[in-house]
Amino acid sequence: MSGKPKNAVSPTRSEDFPQWYQQVIKVAELAENSPVRGCMVIKPWGYSIWELMQKELDQMFKDTGHENAYFPLFIPKSYIEKEAEHVEGFAKECAVVTHSRLVDDGEGGLKPGSPLEEPLIVRPTSETIIGEVYADWVQSYRDLPLLINQWANVVRWEMRTRIFLRTAEFLWQEGHTVHATSEEAVDETIQMLNVYANFAENYMAMPVIKGEKTEGERFPGAVNTYCIEAMMQDGKALQAGTSHFLGQNFAKSCGIKYLSKEGSEELAWTTSWGVSTRLIGGLIMTHSDDDGLVLPPRLAPKQIVITPVIPKEEQREAVMPYCDKLFDQLKALNYAGSPVRVKLDDRDMRGGEKAWHWIKKGVPMRIEVGPRDVESGKVVMLRRDKGPKDKLFLTVEELVAQATSILQDIQDAILRKATEFRDSKTTQIATKEEFEKCFSVDDTGFAVGYWAGDPELEDKLSKDYKTTVRCVLMEDFEAGKCIFTGASTTKKAVFAKAY
Amino acid sequence: MSGKPKNAVSPTRSEDFPQWYQQVIKVAELAENSPVRGCMVIKPWGYSIWELMQKELDQMFKDTGHENAYFPLFIPKSYIEKEAEHVEGFAKECAVVTHSRLVDDGEGGLKPGSPLEEPLIVRPTSETIIGEVYADWVQSYRDLPLLINQWANVVRWEMRTRIFLRTAEFLWQEGHTVHATSEEAVDETIQMLNVYANFAENYMAMPVIKGEKTEGERFPGAVNTYCIEAMMQDGKALQAGTSHFLGQNFAKSCGIKYLSKEGSEELAWTTSWGVSTRLIGGLIMTHSDDDGLVLPPRLAPKQIVITPVIPKEEQREAVMPYCDKLFDQLKALNYAGSPVRVKLDDRDMRGGEKAWHWIKKGVPMRIEVGPRDVESGKVVMLRRDKGPKDKLFLTVEELVAQATSILQDIQDAILRKATEFRDSKTTQIATKEEFEKCFSVDDTGFAVGYWAGDPELEDKLSKDYKTTVRCVLMEDFEAGKCIFTGASTTKKAVFAKAY
Repeated sequence: MSGKPKNAVSPTRSEDFPQWYQQVIKVAELAENSPVRGCMVIKPWGYSIWELMQKELDQMFKDTGHENAYFPLFIPKSYIEKEAEHVEGFAKECAVVTHSRLVDDGEGGLKPGSPLEEPLIVRPTSETIIGEVYADWVQSYRDLPLLINQWANVVRWEMRTRIFLRTAEFLWQEGHTVHATSEEAVDETIQMLNVYANFAENYMAMPVIKGEKTEGERFPGAVNTYCIEAMMQDGKALQAGTSHFLGQNFAKSCGIKYLSKEGSEELAWTTSWGVSTRLIGGLIMTHSDDDGLVLPPRLAPKQIVITPVIPKEEQREAVMPYCDKLFDQLKALNYAGSPVRVKLDDRDMRGGEKAWHWIKKGVPMRIEVGPRDVESGKVVMLRRDKGPKDKLFLTVEELVAQATSILQDIQDAILRKATEFRDSKTTQIATKEEFEKCFSVDDTGFAVGYWAGDPELEDKLSKDYKTTVRCVLMEDFEAGKCIFTGASTTKKAVFAKAY
Repeated sequence: MSGKPKNAVSPTRSEDFPQWYQQVIKVAELAENSPVRGCMVIKPWGYSIWELMQKELDQMFKDTGHENAYFPLFIPKSYIEKEAEHVEGFAKECAVVTHSRLVDDGEGGLKPGSPLEEPLIVRPTSETIIGEVYADWVQSYRDLPLLINQWANVVRWEMRTRIFLRTAEFLWQEGHTVHATSEEAVDETIQMLNVYANFAENYMAMPVIKGEKTEGERFPGAVNTYCIEAMMQDGKALQAGTSHFLGQNFAKSCGIKYLSKEGSEELAWTTSWGVSTRLIGGLIMTHSDDDGLVLPPRLAPKQIVITPVIPKEEQREAVMPYCDKLFDQLKALNYAGSPVRVKLDDRDMRGGEKAWHWIKKGVPMRIEVGPRDVESGKVVMLRRDKGPKDKLFLTVEELVAQATSILQDIQDAILRKATEFRDSKTTQIATKEEFEKCFSVDDTGFAVGYWAGDPELEDKLSKDYKTTVRCVLMEDFEAGKCIFTGASTTKKAVFAKAY
């Protein structure tokens, strides 16, 4: 393969992980910063990944009884003020609409005109506006449970932004449900956490740890926040999805009440849960390498790319029909419930350049076909999870027979690799000294130990070690001593530096 | 059927069409006004229709070579100022973000804090922000054509709003393409107009007229605007989709240039085209009747609903397994490329109430199953496009064998009905007197005649008759005389009152 650079991405992961991340996004043409502060443009390749994520998650939400709806982009200021903790959490970073038109500024330009009676907030999340609507929809126990999801854009005026991970505007889904009892609401919260974990592992091939956030890290207004945490290749944690048990906090502030079977008026219980385009950032940092993006087949916009290699123009006549036929055969296959997504790249471009184009974009399987392959009835198959020169020669029959199992093998292999990496960088710790030893180096990964701390102690860890409690594990362990306070507890926490 | 009201919707179409429209939206649970001025809440049944529309349109866009991407919600004020006609068209009705946080107002509440350096407009349409990005993306003729679509929410601060037809926030898609030549851009504009017409007729079962907008009705900044116009049951026209040839206007203001094959720098040519949740309003006003919504099978969230009728509890054991089996058989069928969307409604509810629930929601086919049907191996089939008592008795085998062709028959029947209605209310006119006679009554419908008018004359028609030129027909006719000016022309226009 001519023109091969040492690596397609510079700097490499080990040289400068944050810069490597930006470069992967660039060379894979996933997204870019827009001219609007903190807002990104999601380019077609990146958006296709989001569409595939949406499709799979949407089906999972529907399979668990949820329906989609759409609620307003704007939230009146007075609504967001109603829940004290909630407004505290979001007031500092919201976009405020104050005027409804632009008028002549007298200097050849325009200025805001027609002030609104009440300022509107561009939704940072929709608990308050949806709660207000639900207060109308929920009248009787017969209206419950109310299980609704929304796909939408939201805005949080973050100061330091990074594409996919933290942007002023991002795309997400937010589920908002109402239940008659606390128990049902908690069950829903956990169910959706499990949906997220299942999606992360079986579609993104990204292993996650499920846990409960500490008090200090809860969603503003939640009684309990559950999360999935994944380890990136720099050993840092990424919070990839959250599911909140909101208790009766929003039911109270919005007035969501129902008449029970017995005829009494009761306050309802609510939940909310969400994942966002941040998942794409997690996908990148879990699998990609120094040659660019690596995509799990289940979320690859193209799973297989066929690249004809035509050294001399007169060979085109033989190579192209062979590729066309192969294309049709592969397209007719089914993988993971959908037709295989295959592309025939017949652009007039040097072979090496074309190969690197698709390597950088993370396509799981590449098929090269040259004149000699046509003569021998073969193809060259290359897997993105293996080296760029690791070729396998297969007959067309073999390829067509094995293609979908190879795709699944790639899916499994990158999950296994990511899991092994995560486990190799996870340390069980029993003392404060072990904790300190862990987090005195840069790419520690996760540390797991007994925890009975409080928000103050968390603040201290964050200040002294730039380390946070990512989550408290769901399971109860044999009682042990908190590594910091010495108090007896059955709970272990995962500690890590985080995005 | 007990408990049948005279009509499920009051007022009826003939009593008060605008009120009837609001009532259909209410009884079919499609949407409602939100607590935020001019913004609607799209409820699950309405949103499912939008999802089906999106799915079909999205496939059509992809089949014609377009990819999806996502661009920022906010547009800097300076961008929107660049194209003079464009800003003129949108400045009066836009939401302006001026601050980036809420701060204590000293009275226990919050007020906008941290003013932005430059106000941001919530996108009313994205030509200017996308143009700015395209100026970077387009460098060489090799980058063209650039064919991108975006699914998004947009905001236009309309003074008088009506659900689906005119709301402050609405959902839409906007295609934005760049081409090397004027001809290619015009071809694209017409191609997408044809996609919209095809979708309207073959999915919405809504016949449309394709035409060109007059100068006064063009999109602000466009060289030419093409549209599809449909007739509602009150005889008024609804503009259901537009496709704009933007010439080099936005290429100029945004700086979209490319290096030609010959090495010269050239200004590009652009198009944009869009349809919105307004289509749902068109769907309602085209087909629905005094019993509620009527849905074309291709866009019905549920195409068939099975309602078990169980007069005595002990009959449940016989009826339910029969219904379950039927459900499985129908669900296994394919219609229009997808599994049939069938629902088994086993709620504990009076039969009449349940039947009316689904009639009002517009489900194309209902299947009633009672104890006697089980004994005789039959079902009762009712079509939404026929009377609510128009029953057909079929064996299960007959139903399963015929279900998809009945669905297609319903799809065809409502298109035929709407087309006949539209044609019956379309008058060919040759003189100004005939025009006046037409528009002296309320529900005239469309009038078609030779037209060589100008914006001034259009203003007069609008003022004197509340009638507008909906579009100038695409075809050239034998030369004739403009019904107003007497000038010779080959062009005919469609005149109507409009939404």
